[in-house]
Amino acid sequence: MFHQRLNANANANAYAALAAAAVLLLGTPSLADTHLPSWNDSDSRNAIVSFVERTTTLGSGDYVPAAERIAVFDNDGTLWAEQPAYFQMLYMFDRVKELASEHPEWHDEEPFASVLKGDYRNALAGGTPAILKIAMATHGNIDVAEFDAVISKWVAEARHPTSGRPYIEMIYQPMLEVLQYLRANGYQTYIVSGGGIDFMRPWTERIYGIPPEQVVGSSVKAEYKVIDGKPVIMKLPDLNFIDDKEGKPVAIHQHIGRRPIMAFGNSDGDFQMLEWTTAGDGPRLGVLVHHTDAEREWAYDRDSHIGQLVRGLDEGPERGWVIIDMKNDWGQVFAE
Amino acid sequence: MFHQRLNANANANAYAALAAAAVLLLGTPSLADTHLPSWNDSDSRNAIVSFVERTTTLGSGDYVPAAERIAVFDNDGTLWAEQPAYFQMLYMFDRVKELASEHPEWHDEEPFASVLKGDYRNALAGGTPAILKIAMATHGNIDVAEFDAVISKWVAEARHPTSGRPYIEMIYQPMLEVLQYLRANGYQTYIVSGGGIDFMRPWTERIYGIPPEQVVGSSVKAEYKVIDGKPVIMKLPDLNFIDDKEGKPVAIHQHIGRRPIMAFGNSDGDFQMLEWTTAGDGPRLGVLVHHTDAEREWAYDRDSHIGQLVRGLDEGPERGWVIIDMKNDWGQVFAE
Repeated sequence: MFHQRLNANANANAYAALAAAAVLLLGTPSLADTHLPSWNDSDSRNAIVSFVERTTTLGSGDYVPAAERIAVFDNDGTLWAEQPAYFQMLYMFDRVKELASEHPEWHDEEPFASVLKGDYRNALAGGTPAILKIAMATHGNIDVAEFDAVISKWVAEARHPTSGRPYIEMIYQPMLEVLQYLRANGYQTYIVSGGGIDFMRPWTERIYGIPPEQVVGSSVKAEYKVIDGKPVIMKLPDLNFIDDKEGKPVAIHQHIGRRPIMAFGNSDGDFQMLEWTTAGDGPRLGVLVHHTDAEREWAYDRDSHIGQLVRGLDEGPERGWVIIDMKNDWGQVFAE
Repeated sequence: MFHQRLNANANANAYAALAAAAVLLLGTPSLADTHLPSWNDSDSRNAIVSFVERTTTLGSGDYVPAAERIAVFDNDGTLWAEQPAYFQMLYMFDRVKELASEHPEWHDEEPFASVLKGDYRNALAGGTPAILKIAMATHGNIDVAEFDAVISKWVAEARHPTSGRPYIEMIYQPMLEVLQYLRANGYQTYIVSGGGIDFMRPWTERIYGIPPEQVVGSSVKAEYKVIDGKPVIMKLPDLNFIDDKEGKPVAIHQHIGRRPIMAFGNSDGDFQMLEWTTAGDGPRLGVLVHHTDAEREWAYDRDSHIGQLVRGLDEGPERGWVIIDMKNDWGQVFAE
């Protein structure tokens, strides 16, 4: 039985190997040409390609062994859009409405009352405490399997308020190509996001090719218990970790345990992640997506309430960081 | 330049592919025979091999896609020895002596005073608070790069009190073979240990072939800061997470984000990890190493102060868990 299987696999593998050998001996076009078609010929594209070539060329002074080719990506505003509000915030509003029938008290209790009236501005007027209250009510007191199902349903059904598209289609085609290009060159691609780790994991593998174990994010505490003989992991309404600003290098250390050599972000929430990444020895690349395209996407930076980018623009260039000019560097913005 | 590199790689890859194709077409011996030579022909060995064959055979009702082939391993007592005390505890004693010159007050302060006199029994008489005090003093207030260097030096120089061998040679050859056998079959092999995550990461890749990002463990909190322009991550003397008992499934969820299909442990500290792993749908395997070999290793279970195993022995068999009888199932215990 085992030998039968092995031989069946062996034949399939052998033919695949022969085919691969034939392709390789005949030569292939440049990986960068194949993998980054949505990028205009630009300094930012060339900096990324040059870095990948240098770090993967045996004998190059900048060669990096495959095990250390770690690239980290912010999510909101870097891999998918974040306007007019973080998509996870929009999920929370939808979820509050869904749960309202179980919580009659919410009709008289802020910030829930405002959310239920659709007055999101007023709901958020309470600042961080209000947001945390909504976040805990929509992320806690649920077991992880059920939360996974809730999020999977939401990303399948919910629609972006201005584009009318599913949120998981509001992802940047050029960044998707960078992810694939890096992986084709032996890089591991991690998400390191201020967003919720359990909010992202149900869909990142299908959408970005990034498996759950390579997703790092903010989290609530969790508790293991056995209920009627069935073990469950319950998400608690109790903040565990905020993966933003100084939290990002810490989360990278705790989850990955090595310093990345490439980091991609778009806001000052990513500053420390790029700083930590690019301060190491050897070849390093920090990249910021600058939202400059009011027609195809949004244009915002220094004064934005979401994805504010000040320090990155001021200090990034002198630190050698690449600033992507979305309007001019990207031939296409969103994935089809 | 880029094309030159690609073609050089292409030729190397092509020849490797041709060689692989030739080997595969000619057939190979059973992977299990090749990979588990230190195991006696036993029920536990056969249960592991049968599980791996069923989960990797396309068309088998138990086939599991490669992405979901996650196996988790406890470390102390499962991959390496844990007697006469957890090796990390022995590191802590060594480190207290090393740091004593900077801490003259320790000569009059328990539990440090007893450690410095070599009276470890008295040092530990204070129970968990005493252990935590030693742990924080030897794991906190140090930046992660320096801690890595301290641990690397310790594993290179320190010797086990009874065998006289380096601690990293006190690893189980049959388990090393299981790790390699699983990875050869497309499994990801994670450590999920009560031991410190930063204590293990400096050496697990070299010793077990397990990279830092696949090591999960207990941790202290950490802080990112920039000192004289240089970013560092400081380990704080403040407990973050204890990865033991109920903590193990929680840590698996937070770090890996999927439920494993195989779990290996040796004590009741691993009970919940095996319970969580084997309660999922589809094929599942829980395995416990039972320390039964007083001659080649140690024999201990129900009454041991380290690696106590009661519930696993009582409930494991009815739950379908495999109990490895070290004395009879392993032809060789320690790696050469």
